[in-house]
Amino acid sequence: MPTGVSIAVVGATGAAGQMTLRILEERKFPVRELRCFASERSVGKTVTFQGEAVRVQRLEASAFDGVDIAFCSAGTAQSKEYAPQIVRAGAIVVDKSNAWRMDPKVPLIVPEINAHAARRHEGILASPNCTTIVAVMPLKPLHDAGRLRRVVATSYQAVSGAGVQGIDALREETLAWARGEAITPRHFAHQIAFNLIPAIDRFGDDGYTGEELKLVNETRKILEAPELLVAPTTVRVPVFTCHSVAVNVETEDKITASRARDLFARFPGLRVWDEPAEQRYPMPVHVEGQDDCFVGRVREDLSHPRGLNFWVVADQLKKEAATNAVQIAELVLQS
Amino acid sequence: MPTGVSIAVVGATGAAGQMTLRILEERKFPVRELRCFASERSVGKTVTFQGEAVRVQRLEASAFDGVDIAFCSAGTAQSKEYAPQIVRAGAIVVDKSNAWRMDPKVPLIVPEINAHAARRHEGILASPNCTTIVAVMPLKPLHDAGRLRRVVATSYQAVSGAGVQGIDALREETLAWARGEAITPRHFAHQIAFNLIPAIDRFGDDGYTGEELKLVNETRKILEAPELLVAPTTVRVPVFTCHSVAVNVETEDKITASRARDLFARFPGLRVWDEPAEQRYPMPVHVEGQDDCFVGRVREDLSHPRGLNFWVVADQLKKEAATNAVQIAELVLQS
Repeated sequence: MPTGVSIAVVGATGAAGQMTLRILEERKFPVRELRCFASERSVGKTVTFQGEAVRVQRLEASAFDGVDIAFCSAGTAQSKEYAPQIVRAGAIVVDKSNAWRMDPKVPLIVPEINAHAARRHEGILASPNCTTIVAVMPLKPLHDAGRLRRVVATSYQAVSGAGVQGIDALREETLAWARGEAITPRHFAHQIAFNLIPAIDRFGDDGYTGEELKLVNETRKILEAPELLVAPTTVRVPVFTCHSVAVNVETEDKITASRARDLFARFPGLRVWDEPAEQRYPMPVHVEGQDDCFVGRVREDLSHPRGLNFWVVADQLKKEAATNAVQIAELVLQS
Repeated sequence: MPTGVSIAVVGATGAAGQMTLRILEERKFPVRELRCFASERSVGKTVTFQGEAVRVQRLEASAFDGVDIAFCSAGTAQSKEYAPQIVRAGAIVVDKSNAWRMDPKVPLIVPEINAHAARRHEGILASPNCTTIVAVMPLKPLHDAGRLRRVVATSYQAVSGAGVQGIDALREETLAWARGEAITPRHFAHQIAFNLIPAIDRFGDDGYTGEELKLVNETRKILEAPELLVAPTTVRVPVFTCHSVAVNVETEDKITASRARDLFARFPGLRVWDEPAEQRYPMPVHVEGQDDCFVGRVREDLSHPRGLNFWVVADQLKKEAATNAVQIAELVLQS
């Protein structure tokens, strides 16, 4: 493809689709042609790419002839229906939904961790759930150095993880409060302004949410550690952007806090902010807009001789919902 | 004391002191006389109790003659200095600061858990840190039923835990945002509106904060379980009132999720809200103003055969900073 790549973005008007367009620009992805697709009600709208308006088209398989790589930021049901058709039309699909991640024939990729797995695809490559990416990035160097045995992961997830409507809900509810009005919950099942909602995605019979099980299963698949024990709790918090996760791990071989900091600092895509005396640790308002995952509060566990605690924050809209998918596409181009 | 009790409230103008006055009214505590004390800059102000204005006095030991019970909601340094003087003046001190909690001669009381310990005081009784009370309430019935071995506790703490100034900081920062102005951090080391601050209290050399070590040490003392293993992480969140804690526990004897729900439901001061199908689980906006601790999201641990996960929320200003202290005073009156 010497003169560039023909790209499609499905779900181009959503938060993740919009961010994908920004990241393609930022990373100077060699785009020769761009086609944008969205749901029925957005057809005919325009989105901006490299300063030009691109008209949003109706999603239909015939519209993908000649496309090299399609980024799917649509819902799970749409992706289940359209991804195979797009592959048959000759394109490679980088999918961000939950539709294909656990399919054994679909590689689930975080490029810094398991780029090698991208070579074995059959047309679809999946990008993990945003919370999984935040948590799994610091887990990888610890797993390589001391083999992870168990992970207790407790999340603090921004409303942007729920897309544009999540962001609007927090903004509108907070503005209503500022005007002295009663807060009417929007989009989420409950008020999110000044509140915590300890439930993301649907509940299963065992009391876990879909979001929590994604964290367990996707982490195991990405780390190629099917036996890894994971205890997940996921909570929505009134933060616009950046997911944070408090992580407690046990490793088979002891890793000191200072060794862990070294391992994190040397891992691509991870940065360490851990100077408590200067009140420096990762926080959503400082991490917003960054591509990397930021780790801090690294400390040896008081409750287990081979335990570690740490705190990780990443701009999940940027790194997770968009950059990771574009990085996967870059891997595809290289192979 | 047939005609009622002479009460002093030290720190009467602060958030916890104000709440103490409300709880004394609510619980119809037999107050014969009330004296209110605060720091120099509040002397001469008035506070309201049972519809009457009470003038705030200067804090000096001589002002405590004839006082039966003094509630200390002042800072740790003030409490270290004044509590012994107040005891010498003949009063019993119920202290809410960090000054005396770990003193072996001072009982640290959550009345629902260890009322018996209140009998062995030498003039001072301590009320635990607010986060400890939220976490320790559901731990007690599990400890009695199956002996706790290890606890991983991850907190989501409201700004009201930092007093009136904490509440003002979240309000003023959020209003500035609503006016489209830049947010200037107030009171906290960093912006708290739409942010998370993973640091409460000072850092020690081991990377843990004072707040985290309080959770470890106070939980052990209240449960009389000096060997209990606790892994703490404490985080400030942009919520006005109610602390929440995500708790992962291991017990020596297996406790199923349904047995745990029964144990919680039967324990005084605990209530279970755990109907995922109805989107019912404890959240700060629903728990605000309640005296009890609310437990939900009870589920067996995916990562340990004798593990349990749950989520607990309590109005720490009400139950923790005030009701618990008044309950301790009620124990003192009974003994």
